[in-house]
Amino acid sequence: MDPRITKQAEHIIEYATKTKKDDNVLIQLTDYGIELAQEIYLLAARKGANPLITVTPTETTRQYYDIDTSFLRNFPKHVYELTKNTDIIVSIRGENNLKALSNVEPERMSIRSSALKEIQESRLSKRWCLTQVPTPAYAQEAEMSMSEYEDFVYSAILLDWGKECSAMEKVKEVLDKGRQVHLEGVETDLTMSIEGRTAIIGDATHNVPGGETYTAPVDDSAEGKIYFNFPGIVYGREVRDIRLRFEKGEVVDYSANKNEELLKTMLNIDAGSKRLGELGIGTNYGIKLFTKNILFDEKMGGTIHLALGRAYKECGGVNESAIHWDMIKTMNPGNISIDGRTIQNNGVFSWNQADKL
Amino acid sequence: MDPRITKQAEHIIEYATKTKKDDNVLIQLTDYGIELAQEIYLLAARKGANPLITVTPTETTRQYYDIDTSFLRNFPKHVYELTKNTDIIVSIRGENNLKALSNVEPERMSIRSSALKEIQESRLSKRWCLTQVPTPAYAQEAEMSMSEYEDFVYSAILLDWGKECSAMEKVKEVLDKGRQVHLEGVETDLTMSIEGRTAIIGDATHNVPGGETYTAPVDDSAEGKIYFNFPGIVYGREVRDIRLRFEKGEVVDYSANKNEELLKTMLNIDAGSKRLGELGIGTNYGIKLFTKNILFDEKMGGTIHLALGRAYKECGGVNESAIHWDMIKTMNPGNISIDGRTIQNNGVFSWNQADKL
Repeated sequence: MDPRITKQAEHIIEYATKTKKDDNVLIQLTDYGIELAQEIYLLAARKGANPLITVTPTETTRQYYDIDTSFLRNFPKHVYELTKNTDIIVSIRGENNLKALSNVEPERMSIRSSALKEIQESRLSKRWCLTQVPTPAYAQEAEMSMSEYEDFVYSAILLDWGKECSAMEKVKEVLDKGRQVHLEGVETDLTMSIEGRTAIIGDATHNVPGGETYTAPVDDSAEGKIYFNFPGIVYGREVRDIRLRFEKGEVVDYSANKNEELLKTMLNIDAGSKRLGELGIGTNYGIKLFTKNILFDEKMGGTIHLALGRAYKECGGVNESAIHWDMIKTMNPGNISIDGRTIQNNGVFSWNQADKL
Repeated sequence: MDPRITKQAEHIIEYATKTKKDDNVLIQLTDYGIELAQEIYLLAARKGANPLITVTPTETTRQYYDIDTSFLRNFPKHVYELTKNTDIIVSIRGENNLKALSNVEPERMSIRSSALKEIQESRLSKRWCLTQVPTPAYAQEAEMSMSEYEDFVYSAILLDWGKECSAMEKVKEVLDKGRQVHLEGVETDLTMSIEGRTAIIGDATHNVPGGETYTAPVDDSAEGKIYFNFPGIVYGREVRDIRLRFEKGEVVDYSANKNEELLKTMLNIDAGSKRLGELGIGTNYGIKLFTKNILFDEKMGGTIHLALGRAYKECGGVNESAIHWDMIKTMNPGNISIDGRTIQNNGVFSWNQADKL
């Protein structure tokens, strides 16, 4: 077995979930990842915790959506009671096909997701952790071989998270104090206020890998234009070369080179979908490539991401929307400044540049 | 996928568990069997039931036994609540290694099993079903290729169970009415009373495959000798060529060609371990070979089995013991008679012989 799987399991048990005696642990699999699940299981057991592994194959999930619509409203009480009596939930992404759900009617997904709302709420009240294992499907989406993709995944996950958190805290500090953010880059000149908002760090507990610091822009404040060199992905479809122009916080002009219609649809979903819900700064320099996988992409060092739609309440955000759509842009070349002072230039934080002198 | 997997799933849903709308279903895997689990999951979902799959790899179970002994006493409340709120439990045997637990200290297993007693009791109060999928480990134990073993498994399971039940009911009828059983065969001449006892049929609900009719001999009644041509298996060890002689229901003489010491140990475990707990007659003529797997072996058509130790209360049995050890013997050549009338000769029931005329 790849020894990096054990290291990932150790991170999840020791750091992300802080598993201890008598914790009831639930480990959830899709298709791949049984080795990681076994490692987590045994590390948890050696702490005196009680692990259980469940598995829901992707193809089973897909075919489940074809059952009688009234059955989609069923509430699985045994799963609810299992969840309610669980302390720690580790979800391992390991799909064998990333497009398995492409042709499910969104309405059927939405019925099912409403039916499971109480379970989902219970889940979020636990010490939950979302992580991933390398699979051929993810490697394919990333346009890599499996072994290249394994290196990619573990380079992102197996970091010194104490150090990483210090780096994220530094970004949080300047964002919390700051008022006006200025993003400059290729076809990009955008300002927004973050005054009074609270930044949060993605410290590799809920998401493994972690590595971002994010906050919520003040409504009506975004002004200017931005070009996203990475595709925006929604329901597995790519919208390429998105260009947005903001006035008083709202998108007033847009274009895309592929699936522009989808961009239009998304912008017009509701009042909040034309406005910014998040400004995030990627700090994970272990991630060097865009792989069409938001769990990794939004953390990439030297990038920022903006989300259209719903803002995080924890950041003090107020924008409401049915969507929260992340779009990612490299800041190399580029410049991020706050209240007139550059905090990052060409993807490198100013304090790290100073270190280099 | 092998279409016989779908047929096995249909048997489990339609016949063995009679799954219906709103049933909460738990499907348990070890290593192999995900295809069968998926088929059961989807068939259950299409009935309006709520399926969930759990998995406990054999190697994980093995390593679990090495944890701190005090942790082995842990009670996993989330698993208990899951079980309690479940209506149907389908356990799929699919180990990748049948000897994985060979070197676990029996005491550690016993501690764990005591700790989980409440969960086990809850399980047995449900509509439970134990079945198996072919795996290379089982094929190896049976000394067959995988594809030969697949044929073996599905020939045993995919029968017309309506017909099979009629055949078992016929045996039950003669056992329920009968008083004295006489077994004759190679080095075998044994009598016992079954007067007043109730026979039960293995109708392929709890065990898939089914195919046996069994009852409990009257204490003190067994007289004579028997030779078991198939090995008796205990804790994965084989005791070959077991010969037993009974007087007044008790084993007074014994021998074996391999592991005779183990036979001696088993006979002396307690007062009940020298006495008969069960007389079973195999009626599954889809099973033509002994494969060192009790789920199949004891159902083999043309065999009988006797168990030393604990009797089934449902049969009216009274013998108590810590063990219930099944030993199997071919009755071809051989003869089974009840109250002086032959019911089976050389492995063929008398009423079937009459049919042939």
